[in-house]
Amino acid sequence: MAQKPSIPKGTRDFSPSEVAKRQHIISIIKNNFEKFGFQPIETPSFENSETLMGKYGEEGDRLIFKILNSGDYLAKADEKALQNKESNKLTSSISEKALRYDLTVPFARYVVQHQNDIEFPFKRYQIQPVWRADRPQKGRFREFFQCDADVVGSKSLWQEVELVQLYDAVFTDLGLKEATIKINNRKILSGIAEVIGASDKLIDFTVALDKLDKIGEDGVKTEMIEKGISAEAIQKVQLLFNFTGTISEKIEKLAQLLATSKEGMKGVEELQFICSTVLELGLSTAILDLDVTLARGLNYYTGAIFEVAPPKAVAMGSIGGGGRYDDLTGIFGLKDMSGVGISFGLDRIYLVVEELGLFPENVTNTTKALFINYGEKEAFYSMKAIKELRNFGIKVELYPDTVKVGKQFMHADKRTIPFAIIVGETEMNEGKFALKNLISGEQVSLDFEDLKKELLK
Amino acid sequence: MAQKPSIPKGTRDFSPSEVAKRQHIISIIKNNFEKFGFQPIETPSFENSETLMGKYGEEGDRLIFKILNSGDYLAKADEKALQNKESNKLTSSISEKALRYDLTVPFARYVVQHQNDIEFPFKRYQIQPVWRADRPQKGRFREFFQCDADVVGSKSLWQEVELVQLYDAVFTDLGLKEATIKINNRKILSGIAEVIGASDKLIDFTVALDKLDKIGEDGVKTEMIEKGISAEAIQKVQLLFNFTGTISEKIEKLAQLLATSKEGMKGVEELQFICSTVLELGLSTAILDLDVTLARGLNYYTGAIFEVAPPKAVAMGSIGGGGRYDDLTGIFGLKDMSGVGISFGLDRIYLVVEELGLFPENVTNTTKALFINYGEKEAFYSMKAIKELRNFGIKVELYPDTVKVGKQFMHADKRTIPFAIIVGETEMNEGKFALKNLISGEQVSLDFEDLKKELLK
Repeated sequence: MAQKPSIPKGTRDFSPSEVAKRQHIISIIKNNFEKFGFQPIETPSFENSETLMGKYGEEGDRLIFKILNSGDYLAKADEKALQNKESNKLTSSISEKALRYDLTVPFARYVVQHQNDIEFPFKRYQIQPVWRADRPQKGRFREFFQCDADVVGSKSLWQEVELVQLYDAVFTDLGLKEATIKINNRKILSGIAEVIGASDKLIDFTVALDKLDKIGEDGVKTEMIEKGISAEAIQKVQLLFNFTGTISEKIEKLAQLLATSKEGMKGVEELQFICSTVLELGLSTAILDLDVTLARGLNYYTGAIFEVAPPKAVAMGSIGGGGRYDDLTGIFGLKDMSGVGISFGLDRIYLVVEELGLFPENVTNTTKALFINYGEKEAFYSMKAIKELRNFGIKVELYPDTVKVGKQFMHADKRTIPFAIIVGETEMNEGKFALKNLISGEQVSLDFEDLKKELLK
Repeated sequence: MAQKPSIPKGTRDFSPSEVAKRQHIISIIKNNFEKFGFQPIETPSFENSETLMGKYGEEGDRLIFKILNSGDYLAKADEKALQNKESNKLTSSISEKALRYDLTVPFARYVVQHQNDIEFPFKRYQIQPVWRADRPQKGRFREFFQCDADVVGSKSLWQEVELVQLYDAVFTDLGLKEATIKINNRKILSGIAEVIGASDKLIDFTVALDKLDKIGEDGVKTEMIEKGISAEAIQKVQLLFNFTGTISEKIEKLAQLLATSKEGMKGVEELQFICSTVLELGLSTAILDLDVTLARGLNYYTGAIFEVAPPKAVAMGSIGGGGRYDDLTGIFGLKDMSGVGISFGLDRIYLVVEELGLFPENVTNTTKALFINYGEKEAFYSMKAIKELRNFGIKVELYPDTVKVGKQFMHADKRTIPFAIIVGETEMNEGKFALKNLISGEQVSLDFEDLKKELLK
């Protein structure tokens, strides 16, 4: 009856060393979230379907994992959908719950549901898995962790300033230097759309402009015209084709460009405050960059838009993103709650940290020493020491079986345990322990106190 | 379109203070797992249905949450089951994945799947949520965390000794004194069944015997006879009706009682080694007890059986349990892999620690000081200090908006932030900070270095 075991596609098992490395990243993110005043919440893995459906567009709805009702679920099934075998129509009658698709919608639901217990502005963080029935591919999984920090209930731009600092603090602690924190503002994009007189062409415009480095000014303009943007409109934003210089120079150009757009000038003002404050306070290792082609989340972001690119040495997409959404909780009936937040892409950060060799050498070190098991009497003598050593926080183990010594040393070696401790007749008589360094091969005979000192090093 | 938001029954939102308290318990468990040499693994939230189905009995199969296939799932649906509206028969054709029901079966699957990469004996721990479509009730949820430590690949009884020590270490660190670690052995139970000549009546027998304190010897015997256990059989185990004294006295009685049962005597020998070794090594705060009525997991445990009762002051069921199963991985085709493990009941431990007032006072303390926001200039001056303080690991925040000061102090109060820091014209001119203790009301003017020192206290 043996089955060949496997796991669903797009999911992963994590081995001890992978868990240790992930935990290293997560604990740095968590520490900084807390240092910046964010508090943790946790929400259930599955929500009522009506909480999630319709919040992520048609494509999103399709990618949400639905949970089959328990018991005789067909008894309440939509008769007509069943007859016609219409899967889509049937679903809501046989499935009431669904796995969460992100952490933002559950957070909005949480805020509205617990609004009377929450002290606003509310700074929350949440580090939990989410699930998407996406086609799995390299770096894209059906189960993955999101690490989000959001503030809700304040329109203050100090939040944006702090979120940039938070990115900087996390990447600095990870040893990940020169991550680029790109910033833009939805209002700048609206302003540009206004100026070119084509708000429906905004994405085409930014996508084309983003290729400036690759295909040059003429190439970009050709693409824009192909997409139906008029030459006259392009002429109006000519400044964007020479959008270089310092951030304040860029902001200067935007102010010129968007002078006629009230919305656009509001965006300039916001960018001005955020960028100048961040730069004046200083960043430790990250680089702040103003990128007008940054156009993620156009459907929900209303102010700042963030995206983080890894250090240039690594070819990888964004490792974080976020922005401000003026009406976070409106979908659940609580109006006028502005929110702003950022997210860390754990899986990609892992790959970047791995590629750059930035995991600390001892990140996967666990057990410090293995006591070799020579028999019941020796094991008992060892176990007394083990108990003491553990009281001092030292991670030591007894090999559980009295098998060939070579096999026990091999076990220590395979697990990269740095020390073995040998207890034989001699050691027991003298109240000693033979400590063997498994890398250098050096062996010394120590009493308990010296053994403890050596292992605490 | 506003929906009144809610979450599925049997699930929970965790507020910041609840998360902090849960994390307090989890980190103590995790630290001790690692101190004892266990290494973390993580497995996917959902498994292929065939991995889970049939492993927990019929009742278990019913309680497993199934995930509906994505897309046009009815296209592959079992035509006949659909026509006859047989939910049970239809399920496997429209659902290929299911949420994990416990951590043991996924662990067994993991061991078999990765057997070539694992160095045995393999000591793993796993702290992850599991899901059961159980009827929700007080203390029973549809989503809850399990915290498991298991060793696979060694029959050594030193593991059982260490697992008892591990329970003791965790409960000691939690401040939870006099938890009772009950131990029994499946072979003892088999021996008793042999002696009374009624292995099918074993559960009836232990259930009745467990009532000895409440209904007395005559009551228990009456119940046993009602259940069809012969008076003669009861006579043979008369010793169990006076099963008191020290553990070694109890083991002595068992040895007498089970002298004719080879299996039973093997159990006596195992108990003898485990208990005498544990007692000789000593426990810090927990109590070890030999309980022959302990009969959990009879279908899978083959050796030691553990269960932990909370301190007597708290009326609550078991807060942990475990045991040895000789063939953990056989269901997935890997034979002769003995496993032994224990589990911690997070939700119940939480309730016990709460009831006994054992959470550290500062467990939910997060932000140390709130900078009051008097305006843009003051905020900027504050933010420079905040950045510095955070570099020293001090958790400080700026109130993001320039609103009435009273409202800002109220915010600090409601969040139980212990200090407010006031920066006005005077402070800025003098390079100072006014630190106000929000409990005593005391206020002092400090330069940055002294402020830092004060907040580091």
